[in-house]
Amino acid sequence: MLVVMQKNASEEKINAVINAVEKRGYTARPIPGGERVSIGILHNKGSVDADHFLGFDGVKEVIPVTKPYKLVSREFKQENTCIGIGDAVFGNGSLPVIAGPCAVESENQILSIANSVKAAGAKLLRGGAFKPRTSPYSFQGLGKKGLELLAKARKETGLPIVTEAMDVETFDLVEEYADVIQIGARNMQNFSLLRRAGKSVKPVILKRGMSALLQEWLMAAEYIMEEGNNRVILCERGVRTFVKHSRNTLDLSVVSAVKKESHLPIIVDPSHAAGVREQVICLSYACAALGADGVMIEVHNHPEEAMSDGAQSLYPEQFKAVMEKMKAIHAIVGK
Amino acid sequence: MLVVMQKNASEEKINAVINAVEKRGYTARPIPGGERVSIGILHNKGSVDADHFLGFDGVKEVIPVTKPYKLVSREFKQENTCIGIGDAVFGNGSLPVIAGPCAVESENQILSIANSVKAAGAKLLRGGAFKPRTSPYSFQGLGKKGLELLAKARKETGLPIVTEAMDVETFDLVEEYADVIQIGARNMQNFSLLRRAGKSVKPVILKRGMSALLQEWLMAAEYIMEEGNNRVILCERGVRTFVKHSRNTLDLSVVSAVKKESHLPIIVDPSHAAGVREQVICLSYACAALGADGVMIEVHNHPEEAMSDGAQSLYPEQFKAVMEKMKAIHAIVGK
Amino acid sequence: MLVVMQKNASEEKINAVINAVEKRGYTARPIPGGERVSIGILHNKGSVDADHFLGFDGVKEVIPVTKPYKLVSREFKQENTCIGIGDAVFGNGSLPVIAGPCAVESENQILSIANSVKAAGAKLLRGGAFKPRTSPYSFQGLGKKGLELLAKARKETGLPIVTEAMDVETFDLVEEYADVIQIGARNMQNFSLLRRAGKSVKPVILKRGMSALLQEWLMAAEYIMEEGNNRVILCERGVRTFVKHSRNTLDLSVVSAVKKESHLPIIVDPSHAAGVREQVICLSYACAALGADGVMIEVHNHPEEAMSDGAQSLYPEQFKAVMEKMKAIHAIVGK
Amino acid sequence: MLVVMQKNASEEKINAVINAVEKRGYTARPIPGGERVSIGILHNKGSVDADHFLGFDGVKEVIPVTKPYKLVSREFKQENTCIGIGDAVFGNGSLPVIAGPCAVESENQILSIANSVKAAGAKLLRGGAFKPRTSPYSFQGLGKKGLELLAKARKETGLPIVTEAMDVETFDLVEEYADVIQIGARNMQNFSLLRRAGKSVKPVILKRGMSALLQEWLMAAEYIMEEGNNRVILCERGVRTFVKHSRNTLDLSVVSAVKKESHLPIIVDPSHAAGVREQVICLSYACAALGADGVMIEVHNHPEEAMSDGAQSLYPEQFKAVMEKMKAIHAIVGK
Repeated sequence: MLVVMQKNASEEKINAVINAVEKRGYTARPIPGGERVSIGILHNKGSVDADHFLGFDGVKEVIPVTKPYKLVSREFKQENTCIGIGDAVFGNGSLPVIAGPCAVESENQILSIANSVKAAGAKLLRGGAFKPRTSPYSFQGLGKKGLELLAKARKETGLPIVTEAMDVETFDLVEEYADVIQIGARNMQNFSLLRRAGKSVKPVILKRGMSALLQEWLMAAEYIMEEGNNRVILCERGVRTFVKHSRNTLDLSVVSAVKKESHLPIIVDPSHAAGVREQVICLSYACAALGADGVMIEVHNHPEEAMSDGAQSLYPEQFKAVMEKMKAIHAIVGK
Repeated sequence: MLVVMQKNASEEKINAVINAVEKRGYTARPIPGGERVSIGILHNKGSVDADHFLGFDGVKEVIPVTKPYKLVSREFKQENTCIGIGDAVFGNGSLPVIAGPCAVESENQILSIANSVKAAGAKLLRGGAFKPRTSPYSFQGLGKKGLELLAKARKETGLPIVTEAMDVETFDLVEEYADVIQIGARNMQNFSLLRRAGKSVKPVILKRGMSALLQEWLMAAEYIMEEGNNRVILCERGVRTFVKHSRNTLDLSVVSAVKKESHLPIIVDPSHAAGVREQVICLSYACAALGADGVMIEVHNHPEEAMSDGAQSLYPEQFKAVMEKMKAIHAIVGK
Repeated sequence: MLVVMQKNASEEKINAVINAVEKRGYTARPIPGGERVSIGILHNKGSVDADHFLGFDGVKEVIPVTKPYKLVSREFKQENTCIGIGDAVFGNGSLPVIAGPCAVESENQILSIANSVKAAGAKLLRGGAFKPRTSPYSFQGLGKKGLELLAKARKETGLPIVTEAMDVETFDLVEEYADVIQIGARNMQNFSLLRRAGKSVKPVILKRGMSALLQEWLMAAEYIMEEGNNRVILCERGVRTFVKHSRNTLDLSVVSAVKKESHLPIIVDPSHAAGVREQVICLSYACAALGADGVMIEVHNHPEEAMSDGAQSLYPEQFKAVMEKMKAIHAIVGK
Repeated sequence: MLVVMQKNASEEKINAVINAVEKRGYTARPIPGGERVSIGILHNKGSVDADHFLGFDGVKEVIPVTKPYKLVSREFKQENTCIGIGDAVFGNGSLPVIAGPCAVESENQILSIANSVKAAGAKLLRGGAFKPRTSPYSFQGLGKKGLELLAKARKETGLPIVTEAMDVETFDLVEEYADVIQIGARNMQNFSLLRRAGKSVKPVILKRGMSALLQEWLMAAEYIMEEGNNRVILCERGVRTFVKHSRNTLDLSVVSAVKKESHLPIIVDPSHAAGVREQVICLSYACAALGADGVMIEVHNHPEEAMSDGAQSLYPEQFKAVMEKMKAIHAIVGK
C-alpha cells in the first residue's frame, strides 16, 4: 500500500502516518518524490485497510498495491483449477453446458426438458427448487418437491443437477440432492451462506452480484475456499448499468480478467443478463468464442407458459441449434 | 399492464396474447391505436410478470402500469407511518439522529462514544457487533460480547441501540439485545432474513442495496411487512456508480421519491456513502435540509485507531457542531 | 403515449389532462382500468414530450409507447441498409474488419501497419489525425499531415481510410481525405457536427457515447439521416459502468437490440472498451460470433512506443492470428 | 506514477520498463517490496500516460500518483477563485441563485419570469436560445431572437444573463449577448468549443458531462483555462446511473470533492437532475445546506405550457418560497 501525502505536508504529519503504520506492526518506507512524499507500507500479512489512513491530516490519497485475496489468486496457484462433475470438466479448456428451466414446475416439465437438453449435448441439468424472488407474491419454487423431481430427472438422464441454495436453513436439504450448489447473485455477499458452502463437499457455482467488483467477487470465493472447499466455479450473469435494452449488461471482459487474477474456472449465464431470447442466442455464441469455461442456458419446453423467466428461455429445438454452433465455435477457439 | 404489439402484428398474434392473458385469469382489453394495437391487462390480483409476454410473437414491448407492492404503498395507506423508539419518532416530521461507531471495539470505546453522542443530542446509539466484511480476513466484530457492551452503554445513557443482524442463525441473539434491528445493504434481498425480521417484535432499519431500484427496495420492505412487522424504517446509504471521488453516490432524490410511493419513514446514512469525513459533514447538512425522517452518522472517539471505517467517522466535537447546524436547518425546513 | 392517473384522481384533474392533450392537437382517449384511469395520446405526429404531462396534478406516471425516431427505425424500413466501401460491405452479413493505429504518428509507422493489416485481411485502414484527448497536454494528432500520410497509405495499399472529424471547423478537410468519417463517442450528441455529417457525401461511423441509451444513439443517427446522409454505421465501443477491470464495459447485447430497432449496420470496437490487449483478443472473437456487421481493431507495429493507446493495440502477428479465427467463427455463425 | 511488476517478474522485464521510462526522459526509481518490485516514475513534466506501461511484459498494474491537471488545481492556487458578475459573486461563500426558464419562448414569457425571479432574489437570469435536443424534431430554441429577448429582459430587470453556446459557429453571437456563457453537459468534452470558450472574455459555466469523472471534468476546465480564460464556474447537474426514480442522480458529494481538488467555484443545478418539481425543491434546500457556491433553478410562469422541461420548472410563487428557505439555510451553514 502507498500513502501519498499532500504537497505541503509537514514533517510532523508525515511522522504521524509513519507512527500509525508501525503501531500496526507494519514497516513504513517513505519515498520522497519531486514534489511530495509517499509512504510505502510493507511486511503486512493479509491486507491493510486502505481507508484507515485516508483520515489522517496531510494525506492526499491511499493506493492499495497488493490484492487482498490469497487462496483464489493466480499468484498463489499458477495452474488452472479443474473441477470434474459427471462427464463435465470445468477449467480444462472444454466448454461444458448447463441447461434447464429457471424453476422446476412439474415432473412432466423437468423430465421433458432434461431429456431434450441431454440429447442436445448439455452435460448438467439446472432447475430451481428454492427461488429467490423480488416479490413475496411471486412463485417461490416447489421446495423439497422440486429437489425430488430433479433427482428423478437425474436418474432418468444421468445428468448431474445444479440447483440453488438460498439460505443456511435449507442448505442441508439442497446439499443432499444437488451435485453442484448454486449461490445466487443476491447472496454473493451473504457471508454466513458462503461459510456454509465452504464446509460442503459439493462443488459450488458462485454467481457474481449485480454490482460486484471483480475483487469483491473473488473475496466472496475466498470465503468459501477459506473454509476448505476448493471447488468453486465463478459465474458471470450480467451487471446492473444504466442500460435499458437488456435486463442487465453481460460483462464479457470479466472472463479474461478473472483468468488473469485467479485459477478458478469461470462460466457465463447469458440468459439472466439478456432477458430476451434473441439476445441469449447471440450472447451464447459470444461466450463460446471468448474462452469461457462453460455456459449456463435456460431452456423450457413451453416458454410461453413458464412460471418465471419465460421470455429468456430457449425452445428445445433452438437450444439444439445453439449447441451445435457453440461446439463448432469452441473447436476453433479452444484447444 | 400494457402489452404493445408491433405495427404489423396479425390478428392471429394479437389473439394469441389475448388468450394467454385470459388463460391466466385476467381480463384482456385491446386498445387500438393509430398504428398499432396495445392490450391492457386488468383484474389481476397481485402483479403480473411483465417478462412473460415479451416472448410472444408480434409483441414489441410490455409496460407495467401498476406497482407490484401493496402494504408499503402510499396508495394502500395514505398517512405517514410513525415509529417511536425511546425518545425518538421516525416519520412525524422530526429529525432523530442515530450515532455511534461502525463497530463496537471495547467497553471504554463504546461508553465514551455513547456519552458523547448523547450529550450532542443523538437519540439512538449505533454500533456493530456482527460485521459483514468483504474479506474473511477483516475484523468481523465482537459478536455476543459486542451486544453486551451495547447493552451496558444503553444502561448508562438510556439510548436505545441499533445493531445489525447478519443472518437468521444469530437473529435471536441480536433481537434479544437490540432496540432496532438493522438489515445491511448486502442483505437487502436475503429473503430468509427479511422473513425472519418480519416475525420480530422489534422495529427494523432496512438499508438500500448497493444497486437496488426503488421498487426492489420497497419489495424487500414488503417481505417484512407481509410477515406482520409494520415497523420498517428505510435507510438510503449510497449506490454504486461509475464515480470515484466518493465510496458510493448518495442518492438524495430517493427521499422524496420514497415519500411519494410509500408511507414508511426514510432516513439517510451519509457516512457509508461518502467514505471521507469532510463529505460526511456536508452531506449531513443536506440530509437535514431535505426532509429526511432521520440521519445515521458514524462517530468515533479515536477515528485514527478505529478497527473499521475510521476515515469516515466524525470526532465527537465535530459531531456536536454538526448536530447544532442540522438542528437549526431542520427548524427552517421541517414542520 | 399513456398518461397514468393516480387512484384517487378526480374527474376534474382527468379533464385537465385531456384538455392539455387536445390543446396540443392530439387525440386523448381515456382508458378506465379497475382502479385508475389512464389516458392514451393518439394522432401525434413526431413524438410527444413525456415529461410535459408529469407535472400535472393527479398524474402518477407517463409512459411513452411509440419511439421518437423515424428514419433509422426498422419499422420505417424493413430491410437492412447495406453500405459498400471499397471491397467491404457493412450490413450484408459479412464481417469486414477495420484496423490500424489509434493515431497516425509517422509515414513509416502508418505504411508499415497498413501493409500488415491488409495482408492479414483487413478491408479498411483506421488512424486518427485529429485526436480528441481528455488532457490539453496530451498528443493531439498530426492534423493535416496525418491525413496526407493516410492518403499515402491508401495509395500504397488500396485500403479505404477511416478517420475522425472532431469539429465542424476541420470537417471539410477531413472529408476531403477520408473514405469514411468517424464521429467519436464524446461527440455523439454534438448536434452541429451531426448535422454537418448529415450533409456529407461520405459514409459516417457514429460511435456510441460513453453513457448513451440505445434510443439516444439512434436519435443521433436520426440527426444525420434527417440531413440526407443515409450511410450511417453505428459503432459500439463500451459504456461507462462501475466496473474497474476494464476501461469500459463492452455492451454486446446492444448488437441484437440495434438490429431489432433499426435497419442500420452495427459494428463493434473492442479495443477502446477493453484497454488491454488480452481482453481485446477475446472480445474480438465474441464480436465475430455475435453477428456484428464489422469489427474495428487497433493494431500498432510497436505498441510499446505508441503515442496513445499502446496497451490495447495488437501486434501485427497477433492481429493476423485473430483475423484467422474471426473468419472461421464468422463462417459458422454468419449467413 | 507507480508501475507495479508481477511477483515473478524477471530482472530483464524490470529493466525493459526502466529503459522505456528513461527513454521518455523521466527518472525511474525501482522500489523493491517484500514480494514484488514497483517502479516509481519521477521528474515528469505534465502527466504520464498510465496505459502506456500496462502493455509491457511482467507489468501487473500502473498506478497514477499525481494528477494530470495544473491550472485548475488547488495545489497550483490555494485560495478560492471568486468570480463577480453583476451583483453576484461565485466562490466567496455567498449563494447566488440563477433562475429562469429552460428555453426562451416569447417576450411575454421571459419578461414575466425575469421580473418574478428578480423579485424573489435571483441574481442572474437563465434561458436557452440555442437548445441541444436529443431529437431533431424537438423545439430547438428561438436562436438569435431568443438572445434579443434575453437582452430585453436584462435591460428591464438589470439581471445579467446566462445562456448556452452549443457550437463554435454560433459562439460569437452568443458571446455578444450573454454575460455568462454556458457549456452544456453534452459538450463537456467538445474540445474545440472549450478552446473557443477559453478565448472569450466572458465567464463560463461548465456543466459536468452525464458520466464524467471528477478528473475529466477538471481537465475540461483546464482546456478553457489553458487558453487564458480563468473565469470558469463548474456546475453539477446529475449523472447517469441505473436509478429510475429521477432523470439523473444528483451527485452532491462532488461539491466538497471539487473544493478539495480545485480553487474554482462550483454550483449545482437540481432541476435537470431531478426532472420533477417536488424533487427539485428538496434538492435545492440540500444545495444551500451543502456549501455550494450557487444554485441554478428552472422557473416558468406557466410550466404546464412550457415547450421543454415543464415538469421540473417551479412556479414563480414556489420559487419565492424556496428562495426564502434557501437563504435561511445558507445563513446557518455559510460564512
